[in-house]
Amino acid sequence: MPEKPKNDLLGIRYLSAEQIQALYQLADRFWEVLQQPTRKVAALTGSTVALLFFESSTRTKLSFELAAKRLGADVLNFSATGSSLDKGETLLDTALNILAMGVDAFVVRHRGVGSAHFLAKHLPVPVINAGDGTHEHPTQALLDTYTLYRHFGRLEGLTLTIIGDLFHSRVALSHLHIAPKVGLSLRLCAPPSLIPALWYQLGYPIYTEVVPAVAGADAVLVLRMQKERQSYPPIASWQEYSRFYQLKPEHLRPGQVLLHPGPINWGVELHPALQAWPHTRILDQVTHGVAIRMAVLYWLLRG
Amino acid sequence: MPEKPKNDLLGIRYLSAEQIQALYQLADRFWEVLQQPTRKVAALTGSTVALLFFESSTRTKLSFELAAKRLGADVLNFSATGSSLDKGETLLDTALNILAMGVDAFVVRHRGVGSAHFLAKHLPVPVINAGDGTHEHPTQALLDTYTLYRHFGRLEGLTLTIIGDLFHSRVALSHLHIAPKVGLSLRLCAPPSLIPALWYQLGYPIYTEVVPAVAGADAVLVLRMQKERQSYPPIASWQEYSRFYQLKPEHLRPGQVLLHPGPINWGVELHPALQAWPHTRILDQVTHGVAIRMAVLYWLLRG
Amino acid sequence: MPEKPKNDLLGIRYLSAEQIQALYQLADRFWEVLQQPTRKVAALTGSTVALLFFESSTRTKLSFELAAKRLGADVLNFSATGSSLDKGETLLDTALNILAMGVDAFVVRHRGVGSAHFLAKHLPVPVINAGDGTHEHPTQALLDTYTLYRHFGRLEGLTLTIIGDLFHSRVALSHLHIAPKVGLSLRLCAPPSLIPALWYQLGYPIYTEVVPAVAGADAVLVLRMQKERQSYPPIASWQEYSRFYQLKPEHLRPGQVLLHPGPINWGVELHPALQAWPHTRILDQVTHGVAIRMAVLYWLLRG
Repeated sequence: MPEKPKNDLLGIRYLSAEQIQALYQLADRFWEVLQQPTRKVAALTGSTVALLFFESSTRTKLSFELAAKRLGADVLNFSATGSSLDKGETLLDTALNILAMGVDAFVVRHRGVGSAHFLAKHLPVPVINAGDGTHEHPTQALLDTYTLYRHFGRLEGLTLTIIGDLFHSRVALSHLHIAPKVGLSLRLCAPPSLIPALWYQLGYPIYTEVVPAVAGADAVLVLRMQKERQSYPPIASWQEYSRFYQLKPEHLRPGQVLLHPGPINWGVELHPALQAWPHTRILDQVTHGVAIRMAVLYWLLRG
Repeated sequence: MPEKPKNDLLGIRYLSAEQIQALYQLADRFWEVLQQPTRKVAALTGSTVALLFFESSTRTKLSFELAAKRLGADVLNFSATGSSLDKGETLLDTALNILAMGVDAFVVRHRGVGSAHFLAKHLPVPVINAGDGTHEHPTQALLDTYTLYRHFGRLEGLTLTIIGDLFHSRVALSHLHIAPKVGLSLRLCAPPSLIPALWYQLGYPIYTEVVPAVAGADAVLVLRMQKERQSYPPIASWQEYSRFYQLKPEHLRPGQVLLHPGPINWGVELHPALQAWPHTRILDQVTHGVAIRMAVLYWLLRG
Repeated sequence: MPEKPKNDLLGIRYLSAEQIQALYQLADRFWEVLQQPTRKVAALTGSTVALLFFESSTRTKLSFELAAKRLGADVLNFSATGSSLDKGETLLDTALNILAMGVDAFVVRHRGVGSAHFLAKHLPVPVINAGDGTHEHPTQALLDTYTLYRHFGRLEGLTLTIIGDLFHSRVALSHLHIAPKVGLSLRLCAPPSLIPALWYQLGYPIYTEVVPAVAGADAVLVLRMQKERQSYPPIASWQEYSRFYQLKPEHLRPGQVLLHPGPINWGVELHPALQAWPHTRILDQVTHGVAIRMAVLYWLLRG
């Protein structure tokens, strides 16, 4: 797979370990900005960031929008619930039109795997992949690991367990790529029907039961069960899933950090009693998400 | 009923007479700002106001958005036509996520009675109720009375008649609370099936005919007939309603002020000829709405 | 037809040749601004522009929004997919409400022919017609001709061929008005069922075949086939239309400029091989659209 030019963020796979550390350092600086009363810095004043969301999204879009505005950039919102092909216009034509209005970077979410790569190849400005189908969602893996980095002060040598639908999750795939680059030991846990066959060959320990998967891990990232991505029922029922794969308070030991990309289905993948888990960093993920996205935008536009 | 902390606006019931007068004074200052060419003041620069609208709304949302921007604040728009529960996320989780992105105040509209109270209890920042089901809509009652205050120069001793669906109206309930605090004499007029049984015990004069309800009143507030809130048909038909409860020019005497929260169904609750009524203050209500919302935001965030 | 006051842009028919030239000169200045790194000028700081779009639109709305923001104006977005009449509120009441919130100009798109004229008559601030049904879309004709003006350095004496659904196109009608004012020779080409009977009396050469219509023209403007506006099928099928009216590379000679208002249905009105046509100015149209709309807003609000 060829190296992508450095002025896109299409996937964790194209980032070096050094680039990831540099993004963490930038995020540290922007996190400080977010603690100030005005939460703003004039780093991207005059730049315009276009948000192209072809899948419905609220939190990722809001997070990128805030990140751009906190940096002083203008934001151009283009949302289409359906595909642009429905209106007879190609994805590339849509992007070229918006480019012609004058924008400096694109943030793209589209159900098509590789859609951000396709646009990056044809657009002269940076493209950020905010999720392409079941493929990658690099800023989510960056903000998850950045949250652990801030909590533990390091990542090297930590063990992270990911529980959930590995088959349909772009977050999990981005974590497969980031773990070795930041020194995380990764464990994967899912029902057998939600583990891609290929992943057994990657060398990561794979569990089909929660208790051994979680035991001794420093942190647990629980993925959302996403009915909307599952075109056939890969598990008997959500009740069945909850019975065997729901994370419960008795699975955790003090100090184990709980992460979740949100939105949470309480009572499905997480036991409601975990709302009181003292080592939850789920809302920190949201705050860090803004800082990481500020770092990514700044790096691509000014770095 | 316990006093709410002063840094929320959940209902008129929690405001003292002095607080209401203070809001009118603030609104006077911001009304002056709105007459300036740029209509802006840098009072809330650096603050971020989140608008959480779970019911569709255009004018109230636009009014709050403009109020925030006229004060120099940033606005974060979160609109969901359905309940957040549909996506498997709780209302509180949605709000906590948006809070974690960095906001200083919430404006909430939700069909659930008490939803703003619930959020106010769990959020560390001010919450403004922009309508919770059929319960309260405090800024509407503030802007209605503020419009009368500006027109007459006082409220003490004035008589206000409210005509319309009292049963489903959060505006009417907020007026029940504000009238005694500002010295308004209130009259209520509706078909018997649209008057809550409990209201007969509140001591306000209740009319089932328009002519005596309006006679001698200083102002008439006509409510919108809202088909969308009426889960069963409480009246025979809109034609029937119009025949007996529509306000017509012959009901009014010179000097009687006409108010309506909008949007108006001309020909249903208001006779089309009233478009020419010289003492209409309906568009003043809209302008004053921006000033009142600026006052509320400023009071909660800087007061 | 009476002259409109100069502070609206309702149609090309109300513009003099001198006014059109003045708008081109203004657009030249703003085009320069758009080439600067920040793409902004503080020409309309403090002004608020309301966008009232009652028909779904992305590119025209984005273009006006960007134009307003590039001039430093605030933008108030009011979008309703259905008619405001559906909610029981008249178009005028909707506009008057938004006016009362404090706006300095309206940009209106509505399927009703004459809707912008109606609003302009009743509103004290400038109204820009962004498309009223099948009637006029003046900024599109301005940006199309401005694109030719920038490309050729002049318009006088050029020949422009318009191919497509003349019956349902507000763009074509605006071009009928602008051509004589800027010295363009216009040719029209469409299937007979898509040519309004009246247009045969206007004196423009009308073609029902592409080859002679295009031969010797300086530029070709191909219109989008808009299924959504065609209430009865005016042609046998899109396949039939493409077979006889699709513009193909073999129709064009070097130097002939290709224009299209977008979005393009490749393979319907344009042959896919024309994506590589070297004299395409379709994306320039988009860029020039922002400059022209900046010129129009500035002219109406400060000119």
